[in-house]
Amino acid sequence: MKNYSYRCMVALTLCSIMCLAAIQARAAQGEDQTQHRQLAEVETEGGLKVKSADGDFEFELGGELWMDAAAYQEDEADLGNGTELRRARLSLGGKLFKDWGYAAEYDFGGNDAEVKDAYLQYDGFDALSMRVGSFKEPFSLEDQTSGKATTMMERALPVDAFAPGRKLGIGVISSGKRWSAAAGLFGEPVGVDTKDEGDEGWGAGGRMTYAPLKADRHVLHLGASLAYRIPDDESEVRYRVRPESHITDETLVDTGNIDDVDNTSQYGLEAAYARGPFSLQGEYLQTMVAREAGAVELEFSGWYVTSSWVLTGESRQYKASRGRFNRIEPKGSESAWELALRLSSIDLSDEDIEGGKQENLTLGLNAYVNRNVRFRANYIWVDADPSADAVREQPEIFQLRGEIYF
Amino acid sequence: MKNYSYRCMVALTLCSIMCLAAIQARAAQGEDQTQHRQLAEVETEGGLKVKSADGDFEFELGGELWMDAAAYQEDEADLGNGTELRRARLSLGGKLFKDWGYAAEYDFGGNDAEVKDAYLQYDGFDALSMRVGSFKEPFSLEDQTSGKATTMMERALPVDAFAPGRKLGIGVISSGKRWSAAAGLFGEPVGVDTKDEGDEGWGAGGRMTYAPLKADRHVLHLGASLAYRIPDDESEVRYRVRPESHITDETLVDTGNIDDVDNTSQYGLEAAYARGPFSLQGEYLQTMVAREAGAVELEFSGWYVTSSWVLTGESRQYKASRGRFNRIEPKGSESAWELALRLSSIDLSDEDIEGGKQENLTLGLNAYVNRNVRFRANYIWVDADPSADAVREQPEIFQLRGEIYF
Amino acid sequence: MKNYSYRCMVALTLCSIMCLAAIQARAAQGEDQTQHRQLAEVETEGGLKVKSADGDFEFELGGELWMDAAAYQEDEADLGNGTELRRARLSLGGKLFKDWGYAAEYDFGGNDAEVKDAYLQYDGFDALSMRVGSFKEPFSLEDQTSGKATTMMERALPVDAFAPGRKLGIGVISSGKRWSAAAGLFGEPVGVDTKDEGDEGWGAGGRMTYAPLKADRHVLHLGASLAYRIPDDESEVRYRVRPESHITDETLVDTGNIDDVDNTSQYGLEAAYARGPFSLQGEYLQTMVAREAGAVELEFSGWYVTSSWVLTGESRQYKASRGRFNRIEPKGSESAWELALRLSSIDLSDEDIEGGKQENLTLGLNAYVNRNVRFRANYIWVDADPSADAVREQPEIFQLRGEIYF
Repeated sequence: MKNYSYRCMVALTLCSIMCLAAIQARAAQGEDQTQHRQLAEVETEGGLKVKSADGDFEFELGGELWMDAAAYQEDEADLGNGTELRRARLSLGGKLFKDWGYAAEYDFGGNDAEVKDAYLQYDGFDALSMRVGSFKEPFSLEDQTSGKATTMMERALPVDAFAPGRKLGIGVISSGKRWSAAAGLFGEPVGVDTKDEGDEGWGAGGRMTYAPLKADRHVLHLGASLAYRIPDDESEVRYRVRPESHITDETLVDTGNIDDVDNTSQYGLEAAYARGPFSLQGEYLQTMVAREAGAVELEFSGWYVTSSWVLTGESRQYKASRGRFNRIEPKGSESAWELALRLSSIDLSDEDIEGGKQENLTLGLNAYVNRNVRFRANYIWVDADPSADAVREQPEIFQLRGEIYF
Repeated sequence: MKNYSYRCMVALTLCSIMCLAAIQARAAQGEDQTQHRQLAEVETEGGLKVKSADGDFEFELGGELWMDAAAYQEDEADLGNGTELRRARLSLGGKLFKDWGYAAEYDFGGNDAEVKDAYLQYDGFDALSMRVGSFKEPFSLEDQTSGKATTMMERALPVDAFAPGRKLGIGVISSGKRWSAAAGLFGEPVGVDTKDEGDEGWGAGGRMTYAPLKADRHVLHLGASLAYRIPDDESEVRYRVRPESHITDETLVDTGNIDDVDNTSQYGLEAAYARGPFSLQGEYLQTMVAREAGAVELEFSGWYVTSSWVLTGESRQYKASRGRFNRIEPKGSESAWELALRLSSIDLSDEDIEGGKQENLTLGLNAYVNRNVRFRANYIWVDADPSADAVREQPEIFQLRGEIYF
Repeated sequence: MKNYSYRCMVALTLCSIMCLAAIQARAAQGEDQTQHRQLAEVETEGGLKVKSADGDFEFELGGELWMDAAAYQEDEADLGNGTELRRARLSLGGKLFKDWGYAAEYDFGGNDAEVKDAYLQYDGFDALSMRVGSFKEPFSLEDQTSGKATTMMERALPVDAFAPGRKLGIGVISSGKRWSAAAGLFGEPVGVDTKDEGDEGWGAGGRMTYAPLKADRHVLHLGASLAYRIPDDESEVRYRVRPESHITDETLVDTGNIDDVDNTSQYGLEAAYARGPFSLQGEYLQTMVAREAGAVELEFSGWYVTSSWVLTGESRQYKASRGRFNRIEPKGSESAWELALRLSSIDLSDEDIEGGKQENLTLGLNAYVNRNVRFRANYIWVDADPSADAVREQPEIFQLRGEIYF
């Protein structure tokens, strides 16, 4: 007979807190719930925004389409020129009874139905928000940055490899004028069910950011995050990553399955500086894998630095309450153009695991036609040393994307 | 050479009736169809409701998110603690030209795309409505009750095991002040295609309900349903059910595949009594499996009784025209709290089939924060006697859910 | 080391053109982009149409449900009587900043999530529109005709077998009062990824149409299309088609995998004549398969002729700018009824490939109840000569459909 995991105890406690909060909030609201049929205002910028007359209810419906093409100058491994519907998202969100909110986001690219963000949020407390459902574990500036707002077409090697990503969990978010903090308790991603009815993995993590300098068009951002995880009953982890290009499925670096994993700890340091049209951003990420049965602990790491220059003068918009940047929007009637350079590196070899090392240099050009339409081009010089077996190779990648947001 | 199945003949007849009805209805309407571009009223309660100025057209868009967590105190079988996005629904519905309506509901939980309700409905006749598409066969009070309105987190053992569920079919619905009746002809569920191009199964069923007592906050409901089915060319049926908890995939009772099935007949009796904040509901369901080749007929059955007490005084709302209850909504500004207890039982052993028996006792607590947000907790004591081979076991289950409706 | 495919060069060039166009268009627009929060008008005809006050932004949300049933009088092959949710579509579309538009259409029938149209379109040039994303290659009148508007329940044998269908690509569309022209460059369909990271296939195609006679209720339409394609690294093609009925998965004619394909060329000739309630439409389609390694070129072809008579007097509506017909809409308050007959033929046998031949005669009856609801019935006499191995057979098919558009 097994005892309850203490996760259950924690969950029960958090649930009680949430319920108590609910009682307190509802009492404080003092509104009769029976009458809320009020005509709403409707706006469209290609999508749909609806707001009730009293402002207590909102509904938004929108989406994204990302259309990619890539050509590979292969070296050793086949990389498969082609096209892809990189994103085909449908997003719903809303606000209810003033303090409650939700997001439900689905992606149908590749003829799958994948759940992205899907959560319930409570904003009734002064100091913080609570969230339950599927959302990203708070880790890494580039991972927390919306795909709408990232500088290059794909996230940097270490971010894609190490960021925990979306899980079903419960979290709290808090912020001030210059800082943000987020923490949470997480289970598995949507759609993952541990084989043979073993217990699922679980983890906890948090991220804090602070902007010592925060003025219009002049920002210095600093942050740190960490994530701790106990894997499911299969006790396995694996780290691998595509070469910052998604059309190919090839992962030139790959640790393979690492068995007998007791827990993993991840750390991230981030900094970003933006002044007028110039911006510099970098992160250092590290993963430690603690194993059972006397096997030595493993350490993998990676970093990137991205510099960007908005040729037409616009500036990246910083959002201190989430500790990240939003997308660039053209001023006036001209498109905004951005030139960017990124150097990224990842090392997945340590002790007995020969995952390989890789360094990418990416040159990027972004054309922000208007708030809703954007085109991108990336050229990537890849230097990959896959492992002791495979030969070192240096393929080159040229990729294009058209994006529409509605 | 095979003759047409008489199903086709029946379908043709029903289709002709529908067409004749269409003609009659359209003539009676007397409206010119060419001009219907009228500005609409829009409301939001977190989702979207749109109504044309003349009331002939309506459109609704909404959805649901259910976020579950469960911990199992296992006895013999592994049951897999974890989390799940139990529902991630997107619902569209509308009314057209006054008498025509439709529903289209999709569920993306678990990273699948499943079609739930998807049908066309005609309400132009005085006495009844006709419906064609994917919808639930009319069987069992708890199965016909929307997931929004059921008392416990999952439906009772016999309901989940025996209810036919959604199929593609054609049906009629009729009602009066105290009664409802529904019947239909059904094929297979969406997404099911019989292997090797065998003919699909088909069936017929109906349900009638009557409320001898129907006053505000005081209801007595009685009902009966039946379902008859001829299986597809593989002539197989199987009954199995999870222990009223969906995160585990384990079914402690399971008949396994039963071959050479000629037809199945199912019967259900239901009763419910609600007075003020108290409610009592129960059903008895039975399935008879008639087999070919001289094999003896099988009989499986089950029942449940649920009692509930809304601590804050609200009452379950009865809808006589559909013979079921709607969700509890908090009055005033406080959350509504409900305490419930359910005993359910199922017997899947008969003759040569050793499916096992199970009894569950569930204690439930529901917090209805507002019309759109709800939290639930269930604690289940399971007593399962899986079959002659497996040992009797008594696991316990604790599960939580956050729900949002928009 | 492989060189870049010239496809990349072409794509880069087109991309530059698009960007230059973007710059020119944005400059010409002269509007400040920062202020577009204007209240919108909302209409519903069962779905949703939203238009901003200044007309620069639009949003549309709608869908389709098609519910089919079929019974087969089989001859040799099993054909599987049954039902199917033939379509369960969700369509979004919109206009942004006046000249930009998009479509995003998903189909969930059969419990899959399939992307249908998903593209970004630019209409800012006087003479033509540009489109990038997933959309149909321009080929064949019946393929370009929306499923809403086709006369029979399924497209004709040669159209279903040979039409390239939807691919990810980039295209241009132009039109005048009596003519339309479309051309494009195409990759693979959404969801297709060449095995073993081989390069994806690509192709180009175009279609031109002209209406020498174009008056109200009197139209003569002529057109021609072609499509050229280089397959992916697996160098395989296959042509096969269902017997104009989708519930069965059986394809009575099938070339099987044809290897060592170097390229395929497809040609189509189309003509349609409509006068008052009468209409006649036909096409001839041909596919040439050029093979490597000295294997002889293959030629497959097919044709169809459809005649239709709208008993209630309505006429098919011709849209010259897209070179196709739109759906019939009933005038006044009565349903519109249409009787139609189609003879279609396909030959998939040539040289060493014995795909078989088939001829179908279809009698169709359509009831257009109103703009949004339709019922159809088809009776098909099939004459199939599958190949040298299989015996000639003559099954018959009866199928019904209920359709709703919102």
